[in-house]
Amino acid sequence: MISESVLVELQNILGREDVLTAREILKTYSYDGTSQWTHEPDAVVFPRTAEQVSAIMKLANAHRIPVTPRGGGTNVSGGSIPVLGGIVLCTTKMDKILNIDRENFTATVECGVVLMNFNTRLAAEGLFFPPDPQSFLAATIGGIVAENAGGPAGVKYGVTKQYLLGLEVVLPTGEIIQLGGRTVKNVVGYDLTMLFCSSEGTLGIITKAEFKVNAIPPAKKTILAIYDDVAVAGENVSLVLKSGVTPAKIELLDNWLIHRIEEASPLGLPGEADAVLIFEVDGMAEAVEKEADKIIEIARMNGAREVRPARDQDEANRFWMARRAGFAMIFGRAPTVLAEDVTVPRGQIPALIRKCRELSRKYDLEIVVMGHAGDGNLHPSVLTDIKDREHFARAEKAVEGIIEAALELGGVLSGEHGIGLEKQRFFRRALGPTVTDLMKNIKSLVDPNNIMNPGKIWD
Amino acid sequence: MISESVLVELQNILGREDVLTAREILKTYSYDGTSQWTHEPDAVVFPRTAEQVSAIMKLANAHRIPVTPRGGGTNVSGGSIPVLGGIVLCTTKMDKILNIDRENFTATVECGVVLMNFNTRLAAEGLFFPPDPQSFLAATIGGIVAENAGGPAGVKYGVTKQYLLGLEVVLPTGEIIQLGGRTVKNVVGYDLTMLFCSSEGTLGIITKAEFKVNAIPPAKKTILAIYDDVAVAGENVSLVLKSGVTPAKIELLDNWLIHRIEEASPLGLPGEADAVLIFEVDGMAEAVEKEADKIIEIARMNGAREVRPARDQDEANRFWMARRAGFAMIFGRAPTVLAEDVTVPRGQIPALIRKCRELSRKYDLEIVVMGHAGDGNLHPSVLTDIKDREHFARAEKAVEGIIEAALELGGVLSGEHGIGLEKQRFFRRALGPTVTDLMKNIKSLVDPNNIMNPGKIWD
Ligand SMILES: Cc1cc2nc3c(=O)[nH]c(=O)nc-3n(C[C@H](O)[C@H](O)[C@H](O)COP(=O)(O)OP(=O)(O)OC[C@H]3O[C@@H](n4cnc5c(N)ncnc54)[C@H](O)[C@@H]3O)c2cc1C
Ligand SMILES: Cc1cc2nc3c(=O)[nH]c(=O)nc-3n(C[C@H](O)[C@H](O)[C@H](O)COP(=O)(O)OP(=O)(O)OC[C@H]3O[C@@H](n4cnc5c(N)ncnc54)[C@H](O)[C@@H]3O)c2cc1C
Repeated sequence: MISESVLVELQNILGREDVLTAREILKTYSYDGTSQWTHEPDAVVFPRTAEQVSAIMKLANAHRIPVTPRGGGTNVSGGSIPVLGGIVLCTTKMDKILNIDRENFTATVECGVVLMNFNTRLAAEGLFFPPDPQSFLAATIGGIVAENAGGPAGVKYGVTKQYLLGLEVVLPTGEIIQLGGRTVKNVVGYDLTMLFCSSEGTLGIITKAEFKVNAIPPAKKTILAIYDDVAVAGENVSLVLKSGVTPAKIELLDNWLIHRIEEASPLGLPGEADAVLIFEVDGMAEAVEKEADKIIEIARMNGAREVRPARDQDEANRFWMARRAGFAMIFGRAPTVLAEDVTVPRGQIPALIRKCRELSRKYDLEIVVMGHAGDGNLHPSVLTDIKDREHFARAEKAVEGIIEAALELGGVLSGEHGIGLEKQRFFRRALGPTVTDLMKNIKSLVDPNNIMNPGKIWD
Repeated sequence: MISESVLVELQNILGREDVLTAREILKTYSYDGTSQWTHEPDAVVFPRTAEQVSAIMKLANAHRIPVTPRGGGTNVSGGSIPVLGGIVLCTTKMDKILNIDRENFTATVECGVVLMNFNTRLAAEGLFFPPDPQSFLAATIGGIVAENAGGPAGVKYGVTKQYLLGLEVVLPTGEIIQLGGRTVKNVVGYDLTMLFCSSEGTLGIITKAEFKVNAIPPAKKTILAIYDDVAVAGENVSLVLKSGVTPAKIELLDNWLIHRIEEASPLGLPGEADAVLIFEVDGMAEAVEKEADKIIEIARMNGAREVRPARDQDEANRFWMARRAGFAMIFGRAPTVLAEDVTVPRGQIPALIRKCRELSRKYDLEIVVMGHAGDGNLHPSVLTDIKDREHFARAEKAVEGIIEAALELGGVLSGEHGIGLEKQRFFRRALGPTVTDLMKNIKSLVDPNNIMNPGKIWD
C-alpha cells in the first residue's frame, strides 16, 4: 500500500487529476492483453513530461514502491500487470509527435503516441514506420520499443529495433538519459539503446524515441493462396523467398480460422482448406507486378489449390481485414486463450505446425495456428478456460510442448510478444544460467532497489 | 611482462607454434590501421577454438594479464593496439564458414573469417552480406561485429547490427556464452547480442556470429555525377532520397581526390570540379532502370555539371575502384593521417563540408573529404605528420573542430570506425557522465579485473 503522504507527493508532482486511486480505475489497470492474470495497483499516474517521470521515479525509489510502466496495455505476455502492486505509470498523456524530418527520414515521438496516429502523421509526408504490430490501433511507442514489436511486415522490413536510432529514458533512480542519436551509423560505446529496447519495462521508462522511417512504396499488391495441406503452404513460403522475391508480408491462417472468417465476413474460402497464405509485395510498380506474377506462378506450380490475386485495393483490404480479425476471433471463442509466440527458422514451419496438431490431439484441445510465416514467427493459440482447472492444466502442458518443440527446431521462446509473466518459467532454461545471471546483474546495476516492473521476465 | 610459466601454460593450451614472442612478430602486432599509435604486446596467440579462447581468458584473468583481441587489424581508431602490453589474441585461425542456410537466409561464421571470403562463399549461393566496409579484403567478422562496421551500402542496407542475429562470446572470465539465435524475431530478455556488437573488444571475445544474409539483387546500375559546388552535391543527395528512390550507395569524393584519381587512373574528371557523387541502385531490373533514370533526371535538373551513367559493368567497376582507392591515396600522401568518421543527419552534409573547409583554412592544412554521403557518414581526413609537433598540434585542433561541428549539427562522434584510442578524450563529453558511468559499470560487471582490451574507449 502507498501511504497518504506519498500520494500527496504524487499529486504535487502531477496535479490531482493525474493521480488516480478510485476502485474502478484500479480495476481497469489491473489487466492487459492476456486473460490469465490480474492484479490491482495502488495508484495509476499519468505524467506528461520526462521531468515528471523523473520525479515519480525518485519518489518511488526512495520509498521502494514498485512502478509498472504501461502504454496501451495490449501486450499479451502479462508485462504491464502490476503484480506487486504499487504505481502503474501510464504514458498515454505523453502523446506528442515532436518532429518528422523529411530530409533525414527520421521522426521523434513521445512514448505515449499510438502507432496508428504516428503512421497517419507520417503518411501525410509520404512516410511510414514499417514494424506493424496488429494492435496498432492502441499500442504505443513505449510498449512497441519495450517489446521490440514486430508484425507481418517483419519478413521484409525487420522489427522495431531495426528502426530505433535513439531513446530518452528515465532510469529507476530518476536520472534522465539520452541514448543513441539521429543517425543510422553510430558507434560510440555500448549500444544501450538496444539494451532498453525489448527490456519490457524492467530497466527504465522510455519517454521519447527517435526512429528511422521509410518512404511509402509507390505500389503494392496482395495475393491469397489456398492450400489443402499446411505443409505445402510452408514449402511455398520457402520457395517464394528462395526465388529472390521478398514479399513485405506472408501471413498464414489455419483451417479453424478459415471457418471463422467464412462465418463472420465470407471471402468464399473452401471449408476443407487446410491453410491460407496472404502475400503482399510492395515497391516500384514495375517490380511489384513482376514479383506478384512470380508468387502466383510459384504457388500454382507447387501445390496451391487456388491462387487469388486481389483484383483491387478494396479486395486486398478485405483479405487483410480477415487476417487482422484473427486474434479477436480466437479470443472471442474461449474464456482463456494462451496465445503462443514462438519463432523458428522458417524452414521449420511445417514441422512446428505438425507438432501443434500432435499436441492438440494428445491433450484433446483446440490449438489455432496463425502468424507471420515469412519470418517463422507463429502464434499457436491454445483455447481453454482458466476456471476449468483440469482443462487449463492440459492447456499449459500443450504450451510447454509447443515451446519445447520450437527450441528443439532451433527457434526461440518469444518472437515479438516478450516474456512478461507468461514465459518467465522457461527463461533460465532457454538462456542458461550464465546469460540469465548476466542479465540479472545488469538489472541490479540499473535498478538497485528492484522497483522497476518487478516480478517479470525471470523467476 | 608475461612470466615464463604463463608462456608455458599458453603453449600447453595452443601448442608451441601458436604462441609467438619473436621480436619481429611483436612489432608486426604493435600497430593497426591508424598511423599514430604503436605498442608491442608480450605475446601473440592464435587460438583455433572457443575452448582454447576460454582457457586463455581464464589464465589471463587469473594472472591479470591484458588481452587485446585482433582480427585483420584494419581498424582506424587504435582499437587493436595492446596499449598496456600483455597478450594479443589474433583470431585469423578461426576462419571457418560453418553453415549457410539457403532456406532461412542465415549464415554461421567463425570470427576470423575475412569478409571477402564470406561474400565469395555466399555468392555461390546467390546471397550476400550487405554491410561493406571498404577494408573487406582483410577485415574479419569479429572486427566487423566489434566495430558494428558499415560502408557505402549503409544508406539502403544499414550496418552490421541490422544483420546480426546471434553470437558466441567468450567472457573475460572464460565462460563461453550463446546470445541471440537464428531468427530475426527474438524477444527473450535483454538484447546482449547488441551489447557485444560495437563493444570494440572490451567486453569479451566474439568467437562465432549468426547473420541474416540477403539474396543478391538481380540487377544494378552505377551513375557518376560531377558538381562544381559540393553543396549542390549535398542537396542532390537529399533530393534523390526524397523522390522515393533509395540507392544502395551514394558516395562522395572531393576535389583533392578527383585530382588524385586523375593522376592514378584517369576517368576524365574535370580538375576544377568540386565534388563527385557515385550512385548505385540495385533490385529488380525494371525498378533499377527506372530508379537510375530518376537519379539522372534529378541530378541534371538540379545543378550537376555532368551526369555519367556507367555504360556497362566494366565502367561501373572503374568508378568503384576509384572510390575504393580513396583511403589508400590519402594515406599515401602524408606521414600521418587523422581519418575522421563523424556522422550527421544527412541534410547537414553541406554544412559539415563547409566547416571542414573553414578549418582547413584556419589551421592551414589539407582536409580531404570523402565518405558515405547517403547516410551522412563522412570521413574528413586531416593530412599531417606526427613527427612535426607544431603541424600535428594544428591537425589535432582541426579534428576537434570537426567533431564539435558534427555534434552541433546533431551528429555523432563516430559512425563506423569506433572510439578506440582515437576519440576516447571526447567520449564523456559526447555521452555525458551518467551514460558514461553506466557503460563503465557494465564493463566492470563483465570484466571485473579489467583485462579485456584495457585502456580503450574512455579515459
Ligand atoms: C490483437 C493484438 C494483436 C497484436 N499483434 C502484435 C503483432 O503483430 N506484433 C507484435 O509484436 N505484437 C503484437 N501484439 C502485442 C502488443 O500489442 C505489442 O507488444 C505492443 O507493442 C504493446 O504496446 P502497448 O503500448 O500496448 O504496451 P503495454 O502492453 O502497455 O506494455 C508492454 C510492456 O512494455 C512496457 N512499457 C510500456 N510502455 C513503456 C515505456 N514507455 N517505457 C518502458 N516500458 C514500457 C510495459 O511495462 C510492459 O512490460 C498484439 C496484441 C494484441 C492484443
Ligand atoms: C582502407 C580502409 C577502409 C575502411 N573502410 C571502412 C568502411 O567503409 N566502413 C567501416 O565501418 N569501417 C571501415 N574501415 C575500418 C575497419 O576496417 C573496420 O572497423 C573493420 O570492421 C575492422 O575489422 P578487423 O578484423 O580488421 O578488426 P581489428 O582492426 O583487428 O579490430 C577492431 C576492433 O575489434 C576488436 N576485435 C577484433 N576481433 C574481435 C573479436 N573476435 N572479438 C572481440 N573483439 C574483436 C579489436 O580489439 C578492436 O578493438 C576501413 C579501414 C581501412 C584501413
